[in-house]
Amino acid sequence: MATITLYGHNLSSPTKMVLSCLEEKQLDYEIVIVDLSAGAQKEPQYLALNPFGLIPTIQDGDLTLFESRAMIRYLAKKYKGQGTELLGKTVLEQAVVDQWCEVEGQSFNSPASTIVAQTIFVPMRGGTTDEAAVEVNVEKLKKVLDIYEERLSKSKYLAGDFFSLADLQHLPSTDNLVNTCGKGDLILSRKHVKAWWEDISSRPAWKKVKKVTEKGPK
Amino acid sequence: MATITLYGHNLSSPTKMVLSCLEEKQLDYEIVIVDLSAGAQKEPQYLALNPFGLIPTIQDGDLTLFESRAMIRYLAKKYKGQGTELLGKTVLEQAVVDQWCEVEGQSFNSPASTIVAQTIFVPMRGGTTDEAAVEVNVEKLKKVLDIYEERLSKSKYLAGDFFSLADLQHLPSTDNLVNTCGKGDLILSRKHVKAWWEDISSRPAWKKVKKVTEKGPK
Repeated sequence: MATITLYGHNLSSPTKMVLSCLEEKQLDYEIVIVDLSAGAQKEPQYLALNPFGLIPTIQDGDLTLFESRAMIRYLAKKYKGQGTELLGKTVLEQAVVDQWCEVEGQSFNSPASTIVAQTIFVPMRGGTTDEAAVEVNVEKLKKVLDIYEERLSKSKYLAGDFFSLADLQHLPSTDNLVNTCGKGDLILSRKHVKAWWEDISSRPAWKKVKKVTEKGPK
Repeated sequence: MATITLYGHNLSSPTKMVLSCLEEKQLDYEIVIVDLSAGAQKEPQYLALNPFGLIPTIQDGDLTLFESRAMIRYLAKKYKGQGTELLGKTVLEQAVVDQWCEVEGQSFNSPASTIVAQTIFVPMRGGTTDEAAVEVNVEKLKKVLDIYEERLSKSKYLAGDFFSLADLQHLPSTDNLVNTCGKGDLILSRKHVKAWWEDISSRPAWKKVKKVTEKGPK
């Protein structure tokens, strides 16, 4: 099997999402760091791979792919039968996985990533955190997590009794909320969300991603 | 085949997205109107189907599903071999379809739906359009559409030479931009985006959706 190339950055949540999938699927890959501080993601060479100038991008043989959620779905489908199965076994199971993947993309991600950006990345670039924006998005996220709490009181994982892409998509931003932003209470104050988080964040694949990205370039 | 039930509303873009898929797949379905003006989407009976209190929701046999983009993926997969094929034939084609579906969900939808909400729904409810928000989102959408223009200069549809879910996802909001919001220039000033729009909006399935939803309750 040819090695997969991942263009990304160790502080990027979408990069970590794809890394987590590569590790779950036990795939060989190499990482090419895109130097965001030098604006490398906006240079013609990178824009030829990813016209939006965003990270990450993957190359696997003849395929170049952007959009992290499309990448992990591709990897889970293409390498079915290797490593962790992440899609669901039947069309019905897959529909429920897709449903919770969309909840992450449409309802969880926007408030979570805004909180992460405002509390980590804005100060890192010398700016001042917009506390009002953080507060508005904390309130939005609480409402989403109340629905997760109800859901996770009935099933171990978001899509059922099996770990799937739907859970995996939540790892990087939730890790930042708990371990970097000081917003762990959002997760840890909800009994079933806490148990789910402790379960999914203790997976060996995610621990490897943490180790790989913590020692990488900032 | 049991009839599929769609809970939705004729003015809702996600409802129209799912209707378009049901029509492309030539499926039997019945529509249950959720009376948004009476807040029916927040009543316990509906929240039991869709805990987010959003429309639409579908029921197909034992499956109840929310998130419009997950619904159309389910319908395209479950009813493969019937009506229009919308997923791509190979894993590689499917990856490119998924990529452009994610572009719609992550980059196109937010500015497009904000423009639609501010110019149609806010005044409809007696409010005043936030012109500054419209302008900011028009500028965001222009950048996205410049990338579409480049893409569509190389392939007839977003994911290749075949109509797919990636194109279908754009129908309701683009129709509003062109035909209701007075923002048609965003689409019609870009040669390849215009040709794509004229092609996809002339599909019989979409014309049927327009007809069904125009005469429905407001």
